[in-house]
Amino acid sequence: MSLLIKNGRIVTATDDYVADIWVEGETVQAIGKDLPFRANNVIDATGLLVFPGGVDPHVHLDMPFMGTFSSDTHETGTRAALHGGTTTVIDFVLQKQGHSLKEALAEWNSRARGTAVGDYSFHMAVTDFNENTRDEIREMIDNEGITSFKTFMAYKGALMIDDRQMVALMQEVKKQGGLVTVHATNGDVIDYLTAKHRAEGKLTPLYHYLSQPEMTEAEASGRFADMADYTGCPGYIVHMTCEGALNAVRNATRRNQKVFVETCIQYLILDASLYENAAEGAKWVMSPPLREKKDQTTLWAGINQGLVQVVATDHCPFKWEQKLMGKDDFSKIPNGHPAIENRLELLYSEGVHSGKISLNKFVEVACTNPAKIFGMFPRKGTIAVGSDADLVIFDPTTKHRLSAETHHMNVDYSAYEGWEITGKVKTVLLRGKVVIDDGTCLAEKGYGQFIKRNKVSGTI
Amino acid sequence: MSLLIKNGRIVTATDDYVADIWVEGETVQAIGKDLPFRANNVIDATGLLVFPGGVDPHVHLDMPFMGTFSSDTHETGTRAALHGGTTTVIDFVLQKQGHSLKEALAEWNSRARGTAVGDYSFHMAVTDFNENTRDEIREMIDNEGITSFKTFMAYKGALMIDDRQMVALMQEVKKQGGLVTVHATNGDVIDYLTAKHRAEGKLTPLYHYLSQPEMTEAEASGRFADMADYTGCPGYIVHMTCEGALNAVRNATRRNQKVFVETCIQYLILDASLYENAAEGAKWVMSPPLREKKDQTTLWAGINQGLVQVVATDHCPFKWEQKLMGKDDFSKIPNGHPAIENRLELLYSEGVHSGKISLNKFVEVACTNPAKIFGMFPRKGTIAVGSDADLVIFDPTTKHRLSAETHHMNVDYSAYEGWEITGKVKTVLLRGKVVIDDGTCLAEKGYGQFIKRNKVSGTI
Amino acid sequence: MSLLIKNGRIVTATDDYVADIWVEGETVQAIGKDLPFRANNVIDATGLLVFPGGVDPHVHLDMPFMGTFSSDTHETGTRAALHGGTTTVIDFVLQKQGHSLKEALAEWNSRARGTAVGDYSFHMAVTDFNENTRDEIREMIDNEGITSFKTFMAYKGALMIDDRQMVALMQEVKKQGGLVTVHATNGDVIDYLTAKHRAEGKLTPLYHYLSQPEMTEAEASGRFADMADYTGCPGYIVHMTCEGALNAVRNATRRNQKVFVETCIQYLILDASLYENAAEGAKWVMSPPLREKKDQTTLWAGINQGLVQVVATDHCPFKWEQKLMGKDDFSKIPNGHPAIENRLELLYSEGVHSGKISLNKFVEVACTNPAKIFGMFPRKGTIAVGSDADLVIFDPTTKHRLSAETHHMNVDYSAYEGWEITGKVKTVLLRGKVVIDDGTCLAEKGYGQFIKRNKVSGTI
Amino acid sequence: MSLLIKNGRIVTATDDYVADIWVEGETVQAIGKDLPFRANNVIDATGLLVFPGGVDPHVHLDMPFMGTFSSDTHETGTRAALHGGTTTVIDFVLQKQGHSLKEALAEWNSRARGTAVGDYSFHMAVTDFNENTRDEIREMIDNEGITSFKTFMAYKGALMIDDRQMVALMQEVKKQGGLVTVHATNGDVIDYLTAKHRAEGKLTPLYHYLSQPEMTEAEASGRFADMADYTGCPGYIVHMTCEGALNAVRNATRRNQKVFVETCIQYLILDASLYENAAEGAKWVMSPPLREKKDQTTLWAGINQGLVQVVATDHCPFKWEQKLMGKDDFSKIPNGHPAIENRLELLYSEGVHSGKISLNKFVEVACTNPAKIFGMFPRKGTIAVGSDADLVIFDPTTKHRLSAETHHMNVDYSAYEGWEITGKVKTVLLRGKVVIDDGTCLAEKGYGQFIKRNKVSGTI
Repeated sequence: MSLLIKNGRIVTATDDYVADIWVEGETVQAIGKDLPFRANNVIDATGLLVFPGGVDPHVHLDMPFMGTFSSDTHETGTRAALHGGTTTVIDFVLQKQGHSLKEALAEWNSRARGTAVGDYSFHMAVTDFNENTRDEIREMIDNEGITSFKTFMAYKGALMIDDRQMVALMQEVKKQGGLVTVHATNGDVIDYLTAKHRAEGKLTPLYHYLSQPEMTEAEASGRFADMADYTGCPGYIVHMTCEGALNAVRNATRRNQKVFVETCIQYLILDASLYENAAEGAKWVMSPPLREKKDQTTLWAGINQGLVQVVATDHCPFKWEQKLMGKDDFSKIPNGHPAIENRLELLYSEGVHSGKISLNKFVEVACTNPAKIFGMFPRKGTIAVGSDADLVIFDPTTKHRLSAETHHMNVDYSAYEGWEITGKVKTVLLRGKVVIDDGTCLAEKGYGQFIKRNKVSGTI
Repeated sequence: MSLLIKNGRIVTATDDYVADIWVEGETVQAIGKDLPFRANNVIDATGLLVFPGGVDPHVHLDMPFMGTFSSDTHETGTRAALHGGTTTVIDFVLQKQGHSLKEALAEWNSRARGTAVGDYSFHMAVTDFNENTRDEIREMIDNEGITSFKTFMAYKGALMIDDRQMVALMQEVKKQGGLVTVHATNGDVIDYLTAKHRAEGKLTPLYHYLSQPEMTEAEASGRFADMADYTGCPGYIVHMTCEGALNAVRNATRRNQKVFVETCIQYLILDASLYENAAEGAKWVMSPPLREKKDQTTLWAGINQGLVQVVATDHCPFKWEQKLMGKDDFSKIPNGHPAIENRLELLYSEGVHSGKISLNKFVEVACTNPAKIFGMFPRKGTIAVGSDADLVIFDPTTKHRLSAETHHMNVDYSAYEGWEITGKVKTVLLRGKVVIDDGTCLAEKGYGQFIKRNKVSGTI
Repeated sequence: MSLLIKNGRIVTATDDYVADIWVEGETVQAIGKDLPFRANNVIDATGLLVFPGGVDPHVHLDMPFMGTFSSDTHETGTRAALHGGTTTVIDFVLQKQGHSLKEALAEWNSRARGTAVGDYSFHMAVTDFNENTRDEIREMIDNEGITSFKTFMAYKGALMIDDRQMVALMQEVKKQGGLVTVHATNGDVIDYLTAKHRAEGKLTPLYHYLSQPEMTEAEASGRFADMADYTGCPGYIVHMTCEGALNAVRNATRRNQKVFVETCIQYLILDASLYENAAEGAKWVMSPPLREKKDQTTLWAGINQGLVQVVATDHCPFKWEQKLMGKDDFSKIPNGHPAIENRLELLYSEGVHSGKISLNKFVEVACTNPAKIFGMFPRKGTIAVGSDADLVIFDPTTKHRLSAETHHMNVDYSAYEGWEITGKVKTVLLRGKVVIDDGTCLAEKGYGQFIKRNKVSGTI
Repeated sequence: MSLLIKNGRIVTATDDYVADIWVEGETVQAIGKDLPFRANNVIDATGLLVFPGGVDPHVHLDMPFMGTFSSDTHETGTRAALHGGTTTVIDFVLQKQGHSLKEALAEWNSRARGTAVGDYSFHMAVTDFNENTRDEIREMIDNEGITSFKTFMAYKGALMIDDRQMVALMQEVKKQGGLVTVHATNGDVIDYLTAKHRAEGKLTPLYHYLSQPEMTEAEASGRFADMADYTGCPGYIVHMTCEGALNAVRNATRRNQKVFVETCIQYLILDASLYENAAEGAKWVMSPPLREKKDQTTLWAGINQGLVQVVATDHCPFKWEQKLMGKDDFSKIPNGHPAIENRLELLYSEGVHSGKISLNKFVEVACTNPAKIFGMFPRKGTIAVGSDADLVIFDPTTKHRLSAETHHMNVDYSAYEGWEITGKVKTVLLRGKVVIDDGTCLAEKGYGQFIKRNKVSGTI
């Protein structure tokens, strides 16, 4: 099978030029001016952008939670991702405290294998680090191709590890060639404030926000950086939201340290004023919560300064009925919001079209850096000879509106209902196959592959 | 004319893969696996790296100085650059105080046109900013393709402008779409210390170092960042050497500012202990001077943190006879050292081979970022379809020694005499033509073209 | 002559207790409970505060300026100071460029000697540092008791010295046991912005403010700290107004440096919104200008952090007629405002009464620290045995309003017209003599003495 | 009873003058030149310093630990303190987890009442904060005069509280007018490193040091400051040892925060090289451990910058036999060292005599600030009318050597054996009584009183 994309404006994290792309099988085989090859399939990309399939390194699909599951399965979630131009996602396997990593992996495999439409990998969330876990780290890296280990500094009694486990984990992960990622908020303080607000009868979504003040994230980000510096382990802070937290990383630059930082699309464009809506605020209840305008400004600046390397989603959708579990108590609202389908279009429209970031930077933070940092490069995250032909053909001028009525995520509201967007995904290829064509998904359930990842280091 | 490079390991700032490169005329036309084209010339690059021609944005060729000239002309300097894999350089036109930018440009054109072997561009050094100069800024940008304006915070009475002129220049340059670059050291303090040391009979090269303490650079770097922040003008600090100066830029990140930073290869690998050699210290007399080991560590870290974007040379060679002008008085030693030919090999050997930076980062700081920041991208600085076929074919394993006996710069000593290097430039193409082949230069005097540059912004 | 103050609440920078004070001649001789001494004069201070006479280390009396003089002479100025509880002031001698320090001192002596009602000393403003000046530094310190040397980083061509002179001066002053103080704003940038605004026809007082943006002060404060650190010379920044400048000093704490900081009462309580009044804004035209609310918050915090040691006035009054010299051009408005009489009452009311600072801190910043830093301690600035009996008996509860109609400064407007104040100066002693008694001045012209000052160091 | 001290050089945190001090009963009644009073007892202090009795706010007397007790009782400890010029100490009551504050207080009272020779107060160490504890906070402040609450971020399972309890405690303490103090080191990380070193057979005292790296203290200090800032509660960090921790406080100044900092005499003058002595290193095993020379420099600078307010001891002596409990395992060495008797002489000799701090600063950090911060002022910590006549008559020129043979602490080694000291305590008064006279203690067991303390605020 062969395919030729003619005359597109090809954009990578570095480059920007007009050429043809020749795909044979699953990979790009040649890029050139007026390539003389004859293909089974020819797509005219004149006037359109062609960039690498998006890589979203932070999604939660079919995740067990409070007796229910996040509403997108690996099938619906990765399909929606494809509609939005994201061809690879990294989901989280959650170790159960008292159980092994392998057990957890088996459970997640049972849900994802044969189900996913788009490609996927797993982070391993270590929620109980002990001598048995230590032995499993190498296995995960060497045998399973799982090279990143997620930790939680919040959710005590469920997911949280203490700093003792954190340092021990970091030393082992560094030794084996992996990376430690972190949900960096001070779980103790959040637990206290949540309980306090509940005891005071303060139960609306606004108090979700007020129970996780900026300090809780700034503190934990600094603490994580301190431990990463001490152990020398590569570190990555997920879903950073605020100035205080980025300043902790900026301070760490003075000791010559490098910490990777991910923000999510929502923190760049939404703010906490949405929580004042008691009736609908639950839509945006997530952890950490949305912040202030000043924090948006800081995060955009962080991207351009090279101190924020990744824009993800933390996609974790719940239907409105599920969200209503917490209608009388913010602490019972399932945390998370749907964005897996919207990330690239929102980032293009609000970032590139509005002039905040360059096109190359857009590709860098949404496609290339996630692939590089997490060991999927050069297979994923770029357009280059030999790389998977994961390609987005994108119309940079079409205007359209986001809506639950038209999106493909399995959730009955949109966090961005009615937002006008400039720029639209037109065609998407995954491993050489056209999987999205003008809004229609052409890939079957199970087309998605599990991507084994390589060892990583703290620099890219 | 066509040329095919077979089977090289192609490295850009982002990518790293094995493929063939097809060159027609002056540009790359296709990149692919087993390209089926028939070329006039086929080069087998199996086992070799192929990366973009280096871009050195900081060189001084044939520069009038103290009644003499820096010893490399545009011919010898760009030829030596080609030998070292650098295909494009940016030289500095120096306005004479009381005279126009155009006059200065005419003088530099008269020396460089028809002379250069490699491609080149000019920065315009503004040493006297007034209303006439203001009018010339737009002309330089729009008509001459000179979009970067160099300023000196040192060399009072010769090159230095005061802060009044600096802010005025920044406001105009921002308006016209250019960039202000700066030699950021406190000229007043240096002049004072120099005079003081001379008056005290402290005349050896060590006092060159002690007359330019870290403070003079840290202060001026902070001051420049302050003015760039106030005016909103894109700013670029040349030849940064020390922790104090990088900390000024790190502090500025807290106000969401981005300042570009260049270091030079010598500051990464040489240190001030060389000045203790009274007899030979003059070889490394340059401004700012070499610093301490801690500063090397900081600069390497700055590269990996993304806060140092460029590694240049500040190539400004003087023969030993010229250096001897200052044998009895450090202040009379012509400032500068030869490195234009050594930069890429040194950076590869000491950076990539020793494990301090990645191959992609090597290309980013030595080739791509200089081209992007200064408006020569995508013509220069990358390997992509449509870009100039400026290519280095590099053997990453050959070991050799640097020496004045074998180098091609017009200077009778090497600043790196006897250094053992891992990795060697084998073949160099400039605009599709093989200009260096195993140590032989195949390009004629005058082959080098002046590169007009585009408008720039403060982000890349 | 003897005097007994009975039963006052005695407050020093450290202490706070109720006792009697026994004064013989010019000094305090004993402090105790129910002292059994019989005095010529007994004052009952029951229910009143007794604190040391204020020391205002930053005033400009009878200062030649633009063909006129600041409107308070040493007589009227020090008399008004006494009314407000300030018993000692430090005025500024201004060297004329091209002339000696001695000549300037002679001129100032001719105006102040036999004229001042309150005690006074001089800072020497060095506006032209050369080899002759260098020789005069020791003379000033050893023979004249002038141990502080004021420098201007602004007012180019009139008062400004460049960094070359600054470092040279610092080295000499350090050697001789003195202190360098500084007006730290970037004169070049201010000159440029002033000229620019004038050229654009922007001539109202608001443009005075906009010609001296926070950056100009933050930059120069950092630069001064850098030079003080390099030379090791004790440094003191006068009239600091803003967060950016204090942050420069906070950054300097990281290299273990100590820089003294003075703010003025107006920067703690007034803000730049006053400049929006085009008709009256001239009243508050001073340099640096008033700033924002955030800056007030920062300065109060700086006092409590121990990073701001002194609250002065920069008293430099001009009558409204004089201010009108600039009615059509902000740059012609004589800079300065009247506050010498109001400082202590304003600082008590807005600082102590409002709960922002403690009583001890009030005495520390308004009386003790200025005396210590500038070498007049223990003669001035405290209540202790052997110290001059400079005492303020203060009613902490009386409410009154400030007004030009009732003040004693020689200026026909008040910068604080109608402000309601809690706390009022009742009786003031200078060197054992009651000089103010319920609003009446009992001291003659010429009662004030010149205070020779001691060598100082960078710590207190 | 009355007493007259003639002609001493009286030094307080502010003042420095020569006068007589008249003591009647327990307090100072008058200070003056040639006081005409006739006293029962006259002491000639000509040529001697007279400063306030030292206040050591950090001592552990008769503290239950590992089945034994720290070797100084309230009797021997306060007596030794008196010998060294320290007239008041603050000891720590340790709540037992699961028990009330009152129970703990009763236990400590049973050991200290009628036993102490010098005056003393208690901090209440909260090791288990719950709703019952919350109710006890007000009682402690209002009824018991215990206004400071010590917390441990280390010693998990014994003394440590988590951040949930910390924030809850801070909110209550702030409400009631108290202060939270903290042992700020990351207990989890220290526990992990300790266990790791033990498991690896690394058991010498050096591994005590290596189990508590600078990071563990810098991290916790920053975290504590973050929580204090969020709650607005006055905060005080005990026994700070290192640059990283002080930098956390310096960073916090940028948000206008004030945090009190205490260091201890040993961290200013000893360093970690002592741990290399495997046989004797146990003498200096304390937590946090001794650090590096750079940290000493930073702490001295912090004192002069006003960012370190107190120099205490953390006196916690164990006899060599007790120390030998850990001869085969550093983790079993009882933590602490003897210094209660040596603090003032060491600080005078190494600080004042060597020129690092002024005499006033010496009194401020060793006597006045501890009294002010902890609510014992003006009764303790100064020489003023009405204050307790706690006085040290000190010979500033006598040289002598510290030794276990001559000290009065109940411990059979000296941490400073053989140190030559300049300056010696000669006579000490406590509440008007001569308690030490030329090395002889004249006070009986039980002379010491418990000092109830006042409410406090975050500023002094």
